[in-house]
Amino acid sequence: MIDGTLVTLAQAAREAMRQASAALIASDPTLAQQVTVRDAEIDVLARVLDDRVYELVAQQHPDGDDARRLLSALRVGAHLERMGDLAVHVARATLRRHPVPAAAAELAGILGQMGAAADDLAGKVVAALADRDTELAGRLDKDDDAMDELHRRLFTVMLSPEWPLGVEAAIDGALLGRFYERYADHAVDIGRHVLRLYGDGSKLAE
Amino acid sequence: MIDGTLVTLAQAAREAMRQASAALIASDPTLAQQVTVRDAEIDVLARVLDDRVYELVAQQHPDGDDARRLLSALRVGAHLERMGDLAVHVARATLRRHPVPAAAAELAGILGQMGAAADDLAGKVVAALADRDTELAGRLDKDDDAMDELHRRLFTVMLSPEWPLGVEAAIDGALLGRFYERYADHAVDIGRHVLRLYGDGSKLAE
Repeated sequence: MIDGTLVTLAQAAREAMRQASAALIASDPTLAQQVTVRDAEIDVLARVLDDRVYELVAQQHPDGDDARRLLSALRVGAHLERMGDLAVHVARATLRRHPVPAAAAELAGILGQMGAAADDLAGKVVAALADRDTELAGRLDKDDDAMDELHRRLFTVMLSPEWPLGVEAAIDGALLGRFYERYADHAVDIGRHVLRLYGDGSKLAE
Repeated sequence: MIDGTLVTLAQAAREAMRQASAALIASDPTLAQQVTVRDAEIDVLARVLDDRVYELVAQQHPDGDDARRLLSALRVGAHLERMGDLAVHVARATLRRHPVPAAAAELAGILGQMGAAADDLAGKVVAALADRDTELAGRLDKDDDAMDELHRRLFTVMLSPEWPLGVEAAIDGALLGRFYERYADHAVDIGRHVLRLYGDGSKLAE
């Protein structure tokens, strides 16, 4: 049950950011609002996971590796919950600035790529959890380099003397960049936990 | 041992942000660098806490409330570790912009107050953990309102038509504001866990 819930949570955290990114690029408030609904589902599911881990610890008295895996699952759940929150932050930028696009035309290309990079990392988190693929999980740290490079490019555009837009568009860009970067960081952290969860190929207690 | 480690961690997370805030306002790179050292200590201590919780879960087979308290302690440790990271982010802004102050003169007053608000919240976290004071912990959410108000004021200044500085100073301000706001959010989250940890006045397993 723990394993399956983690996969479902990861899929939801991926879908939340995918919707938030689409809403950002299309400046679509209706789509942005759906992210909030999805995040509420993530929060409920994360709470169910927490309660299940508590139950297993308190009632089944796991030893050694089982205990370590259950506590790692708790951590992975917390990271996924936070990824959902970050999707909501991206969605809220769209809602706050509507009908002005939160992703200014000069930044839409890079922010679109950050959204794609976030989706790529989240897709690998889903696959690593579903397939207990420690090799994939171990590569997430390296895959995050693409996001870091995009983050640097974003700032280069905003800080260039040719930046044609004002302060507000730059602040939006900086915060959106930060949300994507943090989302990616959480994916990398989950990768580390997956190595611990499935490092020996075993299953969690059901 | 768990209780004591949480208090030590909270003191370190408070001191890290206190140093980072002082370095920001004084634009002092030497002080800013010390934050990194302190954060490394926090990371080590957080790892020790994690390992101790794993041991207790795996070897002492805690039941019911004890299990719940141990898992809450794990969460509190994760929040405190993240607070240390945020102090490092504030310190890095100082280092990146030196000798230009990362807190522009127009924002130094509000950012100074955000630093004070962060220190106030962190001080209450330390006291709530040390004294197992659930009343104090329960009030943290309300105390965070001061930080939210400062955050709004920060954006009002940066987005006013009279904002005299460029894009870079505004981006620094927006990101610094975000770091302080997140630091405060973690303090509030810890407050919720303290209610769970000490809600019945009992001690954690030593």
